[in-house]
Amino acid sequence: MENALFDMDIAYRESLEKIFEYIEQKKYFRSRDELLKHNEVEIAEMLVDIRRRFDLQRMVVLFRALPKDISVDVFAELDNDDRIDIINIITDPEVKYIINELDFDDMIDVLEDLPANIVDKILDKTPKSERKLINNFLKYKEDSAGSLMTPEYINLRKNWTIEEALKHIKEVGLDSETIYTNYVLDGGRKLIGVISLRTLVVSPDNAIVSDLMHDDPVVCHVDDDQEEVSDLFTRYGYLAIPVVDNEFRLVGIVTVDDILDVIEEETTEDIERMGGVIDSANKDYLDMSVTHHVKARLPWLMLLMFSYFITGGIIDSFQEALSKVISLVIYMPMLMGTGGNSGSQSSTLVIRGMATGEIELGDVFKVIWKEIRVSIIVGLCLSFINFFRIVYLDHNPPMVALTVCISMVFIVTIAKIIGATLPMFAKKIGMDPALMAGPMMASLTDMISLTTYFIMAGLLLNI
Amino acid sequence: MENALFDMDIAYRESLEKIFEYIEQKKYFRSRDELLKHNEVEIAEMLVDIRRRFDLQRMVVLFRALPKDISVDVFAELDNDDRIDIINIITDPEVKYIINELDFDDMIDVLEDLPANIVDKILDKTPKSERKLINNFLKYKEDSAGSLMTPEYINLRKNWTIEEALKHIKEVGLDSETIYTNYVLDGGRKLIGVISLRTLVVSPDNAIVSDLMHDDPVVCHVDDDQEEVSDLFTRYGYLAIPVVDNEFRLVGIVTVDDILDVIEEETTEDIERMGGVIDSANKDYLDMSVTHHVKARLPWLMLLMFSYFITGGIIDSFQEALSKVISLVIYMPMLMGTGGNSGSQSSTLVIRGMATGEIELGDVFKVIWKEIRVSIIVGLCLSFINFFRIVYLDHNPPMVALTVCISMVFIVTIAKIIGATLPMFAKKIGMDPALMAGPMMASLTDMISLTTYFIMAGLLLNI
Repeated sequence: MENALFDMDIAYRESLEKIFEYIEQKKYFRSRDELLKHNEVEIAEMLVDIRRRFDLQRMVVLFRALPKDISVDVFAELDNDDRIDIINIITDPEVKYIINELDFDDMIDVLEDLPANIVDKILDKTPKSERKLINNFLKYKEDSAGSLMTPEYINLRKNWTIEEALKHIKEVGLDSETIYTNYVLDGGRKLIGVISLRTLVVSPDNAIVSDLMHDDPVVCHVDDDQEEVSDLFTRYGYLAIPVVDNEFRLVGIVTVDDILDVIEEETTEDIERMGGVIDSANKDYLDMSVTHHVKARLPWLMLLMFSYFITGGIIDSFQEALSKVISLVIYMPMLMGTGGNSGSQSSTLVIRGMATGEIELGDVFKVIWKEIRVSIIVGLCLSFINFFRIVYLDHNPPMVALTVCISMVFIVTIAKIIGATLPMFAKKIGMDPALMAGPMMASLTDMISLTTYFIMAGLLLNI
Repeated sequence: MENALFDMDIAYRESLEKIFEYIEQKKYFRSRDELLKHNEVEIAEMLVDIRRRFDLQRMVVLFRALPKDISVDVFAELDNDDRIDIINIITDPEVKYIINELDFDDMIDVLEDLPANIVDKILDKTPKSERKLINNFLKYKEDSAGSLMTPEYINLRKNWTIEEALKHIKEVGLDSETIYTNYVLDGGRKLIGVISLRTLVVSPDNAIVSDLMHDDPVVCHVDDDQEEVSDLFTRYGYLAIPVVDNEFRLVGIVTVDDILDVIEEETTEDIERMGGVIDSANKDYLDMSVTHHVKARLPWLMLLMFSYFITGGIIDSFQEALSKVISLVIYMPMLMGTGGNSGSQSSTLVIRGMATGEIELGDVFKVIWKEIRVSIIVGLCLSFINFFRIVYLDHNPPMVALTVCISMVFIVTIAKIIGATLPMFAKKIGMDPALMAGPMMASLTDMISLTTYFIMAGLLLNI
């Protein structure tokens, strides 16, 4: 069966190949015309592909060849790294044109990453009041609600009729980030209500805004972390959420389209941390240099390697016992591996449960109790199979089998309890729980697995 | 500094504690009044908390005590499991009322999970045409665009003026899922354009729809997987995307609020698979029974344990060599652990890169080349430190140190190449790449690490 999305992908690929060919033949006008068959999102993606295939220069040549209004839309779709690189190449008037035409929140994103002297030059001829507003926005912490929001919202008066409100929206709507949610402020700019365009459109013309507005809106604080803001969107399914300061004055709004990017960023960060990668800074894999890759990976590997010095020490201190029953070594990887896997299952479930807001710190005893019951069942099942394998397939003494099997139950249980509680402990002390899964878990459970195994061997085999 | 979100959480907790107390004292009216101080999202969350703290019966008592219109909104916010449990308890007229008042897409979600005879009973008095539409929707595959969409969209005629269009929206807007994106169809119900309410509101009254509409809209196909649909939303930042059939006829629309839930579901599935957990079916950790937890975890642990039988076999065949140089055992966990961690870093980055659409199958050689360069640098750094540790701290012979260090470089390189390419291979053969990270990776790299180590020991130590 044909698939519409699939067809779109093929069309995109074919068009991109054509553009590559034109560029190789230095037919820039033809490649521009081919680019212009697409929308701004696809043009931006193609420019990035051109940069990867050729270089920054050729990407900029094509970017400058775009009609002015389209180039602004495309610029808004690019990553900040690409934006900064383009700005460093194009002329000052071009930069000013683009910056002025951008939506306010995109403009702030760009200005944040530029050196102060270039920002001053760009804002040179900007009216003083706007420059003050921009400077205020530049002060918000990265990844805070303040850094995500835009001041381009529509505010209505509470005593207006619907007709007056709609007339106002018609006038100022083009310059606003969204017109679908509108805000009602009192004299002191305090937020007193929100009203959706839907309500306005389906209500009688002579109704009054204050009678129809929702007067206890969900808000976020300007200093809230972007992850908290995106949780609000997931929880309530709104299109926009107002941002207030300490005095409940409305300072901006965050819209759902920006939140989709935040969710992608935060998910990448979580998954990478769980996989033992630090600080890819949301750069694309292929765009990261080898040095950047090394920096993102070596620290964790180094830290974990040091933890294996301890594991080595544990083995060393049992070396004599091991040399007496060398067959114990055969089951070491299995016990360590099963311990690690058990722990990572539990930490994965708990970290995800905390991320979606289902598990709270107060649930810690419920979680431990559940893990203990699960561990005993799982541990016994695995032990049962192992016992027969060790005795009948490997032809090792039953006491060795018993050592492995009893160790298994203990290891699974301890690993699962640690796997479940360590992320909760991390959250308690203000660390990211995701750091406690994966590699961190694996090296910790390795130590515990070996110690348990050797103690059990000492007890049961008298070595 | 005070934090608005934090205050909201405290207010929620306090209110919930009050409700728990009232329920314990059997003061149901008071607990209902306390519930009604919140919005529908919070009431739904509180009902789930009540069920967890007490039981289903008490949750249903409070649900039935809600005013009818609010109970429908709350019902729409509940998980499908809770919905079905409620339906099985309340009376038929109550069920019919709720089902009829639900948005179309929520109604389909509920009906999908009910036994056929109950669905027939509910749809008993529904007009034939609507019943036919419902039955069509029930046929779409789970997790397809068809199962996410709603037919409650607004369609406009292309020759209408803006004034006529707005008048039409005012009339039918209340019954539509969204009025912010509107659709223009030809006589055969083929989609010929989309127009946003924003465009309509800011344009002159006498302009014509077909002149202002966007006539090459992004669409998805009714059979597309929900993950593909959510990628479109992330890519384009739209509020709604039209769903078409093979003849490009508009059959429904998907809205962004439903996509936020899809993203959460898909992320949970990916993260769980990477952590070696199968099929939690997006149930909450605390709501899953011990049996369900065992089912979600035992299969992977069992499968991986069998893979350790092979690892055990590898050690067994080198047993004689090991017993000669027992100190080699000390470095086994470190080499296996570092191999596993290196592999999981690479697979994490590649899986995430494929999920966000950055890495494609055609990039496989670029990826391998990057991994090789990164591996050599990382491997050499780790080996350097290890050499000194083994010789000067552990006082082992330099040849043992050399064995460990050369093995380390090979192990890191092989693990990283496998970690990066295995998920790509999985995608190529139509499997979920996320299944190839975490535990799967760890057990595979364990085997490779040990084999490399033992071969190297054989070559360098003549054992």
